[in-house]
Amino acid sequence: MAELVGNVLVGQSGGPTSVINASVAGIISEALNHECIEEIYGTLNGVLGILQEDLIDLASESQQQIRALKHTPGAALGTCRYKLKKQQDFERVLEVFKAHNIRYFFYIGGNDSQDTADKISKLAQAQGYELRVIGVPKTIDNDLPITDHTPGYASTIKYIATTVREIACDNEAMGQGDLVSIVEVMGRSAGWIAAGAALAKRRDQPHDAPHLILLPEIPFNQEKVLEEVRRVLKREKYCLIVVAEGLVDSDGNYLAADARTDAFGHAQLGGAGSFLQGLIEQHLPGTKARLVTLGMAQRAAVHCSSKTDNDEAFQAGVKAVKAAVEEAETDKMVTIVRGNTDHYSVEYGLAPLSDIANGVKKLPREWINEDGISMNYQFVRYAQPLIQGEVALPFENGLPVFAHLDKNRVDKQLPAYEI
Amino acid sequence: MAELVGNVLVGQSGGPTSVINASVAGIISEALNHECIEEIYGTLNGVLGILQEDLIDLASESQQQIRALKHTPGAALGTCRYKLKKQQDFERVLEVFKAHNIRYFFYIGGNDSQDTADKISKLAQAQGYELRVIGVPKTIDNDLPITDHTPGYASTIKYIATTVREIACDNEAMGQGDLVSIVEVMGRSAGWIAAGAALAKRRDQPHDAPHLILLPEIPFNQEKVLEEVRRVLKREKYCLIVVAEGLVDSDGNYLAADARTDAFGHAQLGGAGSFLQGLIEQHLPGTKARLVTLGMAQRAAVHCSSKTDNDEAFQAGVKAVKAAVEEAETDKMVTIVRGNTDHYSVEYGLAPLSDIANGVKKLPREWINEDGISMNYQFVRYAQPLIQGEVALPFENGLPVFAHLDKNRVDKQLPAYEI
Repeated sequence: MAELVGNVLVGQSGGPTSVINASVAGIISEALNHECIEEIYGTLNGVLGILQEDLIDLASESQQQIRALKHTPGAALGTCRYKLKKQQDFERVLEVFKAHNIRYFFYIGGNDSQDTADKISKLAQAQGYELRVIGVPKTIDNDLPITDHTPGYASTIKYIATTVREIACDNEAMGQGDLVSIVEVMGRSAGWIAAGAALAKRRDQPHDAPHLILLPEIPFNQEKVLEEVRRVLKREKYCLIVVAEGLVDSDGNYLAADARTDAFGHAQLGGAGSFLQGLIEQHLPGTKARLVTLGMAQRAAVHCSSKTDNDEAFQAGVKAVKAAVEEAETDKMVTIVRGNTDHYSVEYGLAPLSDIANGVKKLPREWINEDGISMNYQFVRYAQPLIQGEVALPFENGLPVFAHLDKNRVDKQLPAYEI
Repeated sequence: MAELVGNVLVGQSGGPTSVINASVAGIISEALNHECIEEIYGTLNGVLGILQEDLIDLASESQQQIRALKHTPGAALGTCRYKLKKQQDFERVLEVFKAHNIRYFFYIGGNDSQDTADKISKLAQAQGYELRVIGVPKTIDNDLPITDHTPGYASTIKYIATTVREIACDNEAMGQGDLVSIVEVMGRSAGWIAAGAALAKRRDQPHDAPHLILLPEIPFNQEKVLEEVRRVLKREKYCLIVVAEGLVDSDGNYLAADARTDAFGHAQLGGAGSFLQGLIEQHLPGTKARLVTLGMAQRAAVHCSSKTDNDEAFQAGVKAVKAAVEEAETDKMVTIVRGNTDHYSVEYGLAPLSDIANGVKKLPREWINEDGISMNYQFVRYAQPLIQGEVALPFENGLPVFAHLDKNRVDKQLPAYEI
């Protein structure tokens, strides 16, 4: 196999997670093992940094900081939601790659990011510029196809399930038949995240919180939900509801106060929790409905992240480099392949970027119980192994310490580019 | 000193915290050391359980469960916000105490609970029933007078500061000069909790998040706040605001959508964060304002609690028993007395319950910077020692495991009582 000598470029895109930097650490660690890789660069804010030639020298960062990346939330290289649109943008990307002899491009992100990586890869091929492009999966939404699950997801649901279990202790102590807690979690179009809250229930304790999980997959039935809340309040003296932000009515309309759209045309939601809070206080007089909106905290909570998830995010980065360098693969994304045995194990595979970009993994309907508000053992069997293990953070003055990169800029070689 | 032989009753009252059960564990552990204590009972849901004679036998719980109490959030005995009003209620309390030979009453709670304990104690004295009543401080609000600080507070601000630091990593990666994060925290009438977020700033990094802390002590100045948000967005590309739920305008009106009152006549608030979110999106066009409402999670988050706080809560329980048994003290609350040296140390003292019940500790104005939106070194010097150390939780299947008491009921001796 022909050895491809040149530089690496790493980028992060889309919403950050608590383990996306672990993938960067994996890529850097593995890249250092290969003689054919000369420089290891990062692009600031994903494709935006490429267009603007804002590259940093990752090899010049201290080993301390690279190690700290493994437990630093956010996206240390910066991220973006910018979508390359014009052909000119793509041309510019290749121009920058050529100027810096980028031969390996690792892009960590979700569907849209893998789509961008795919287009860059295809353009390079068309132009005969030898470039190996490998995507690394990342999204708390867990909606990438082919891969068994996506780094970032497990840490988010571990944090949510922990929070639900803690709030349940609080509410159990407070409840006099009149206390409803609503925990609003992310999930625009799929209930993967909300479903994860089901792990808070102890084995064989179906009456444990969360008592209702309201998913985007199941249209909201006001009468049924209110009836169930009444029943739980009577039985447990309190009721804990987990609701996905993308709750919809039977016509598919979002049950939220406001809706906007982001740069990709996705609806940006919020307010399903507020909606529910108002509804419950209105229809169940004397009931206090309290709202917790975890918001960005749920994708940044590395202090309550999954070691399994963290390790997999790191290894996905390692695999990306090995695939590109040792197997001369390109235009693929790293996938996580679950073993078939009872004991949880994973291997890392590859799938074409275009298959990832054009697919969505849905929460299987058969993992949701008939009642539409709880998850069955199939979901638990899927999700529970993912949240195992805790990540040991270094603490200083009582708080976790995170990486802060020096971000030494790589000299620009090209004229400025107008975005 | 005359030895007082009889039974112990422990109760919890008011809002739970992540360390209130550690105080119960401290009381039980110490009570077992004293021969004069025969039975150790708990009252379910504070004074409600006394009125209804709903007592449980704490000595019959397994040692495992009592140990697990040290890291179980909520209030394992149940809590209440019920306020004893009628003379008849107080008479009933003494009747129940006499029926169960309760000679030691330990009540864990905030101002209102200490007031209740004081009244019970005074009535017993008036009736010549020998009873030793010691209060154990508890409130995340940190507003009890005399004591240097209150168990529960430090764990809450450690969780909040950790969350702020994590969200800052996320937002720093995302921000393009258009992202404002709002973290709404508890604090109806004082900014102790919101102020604690200041600990998220690294030493000598004044530009770290949180960029604005909006306290109930400082009337909201819309123009000044919007101007500061603009400035921060320009400098940092994102802006993180921590806001106390009790934000007020210059006339003292709460800046929130809705206001109700609880059983003690306190205003129940929520919505300062939503208010701010709307304001910012309206006045800073193109800005996305995202809201995190930590709600009950912030008082239950034992997974991110302070070991210092946890240890002090336990020791406050121990001190309560020692004071009652060994020093024959009554009608007092345990206080935490900070040492005068640079190295943080505490001793436990006692203060009359009536002094606690009738006082409030305010956040000193001189600990807030001139700008009204940040805390100075005096606050940091006060608060930072309190959040030191992490509590090691036992995990099972990826989630923390909490105590679940058997709650073996003590046989009722009296006719039922109508509340």
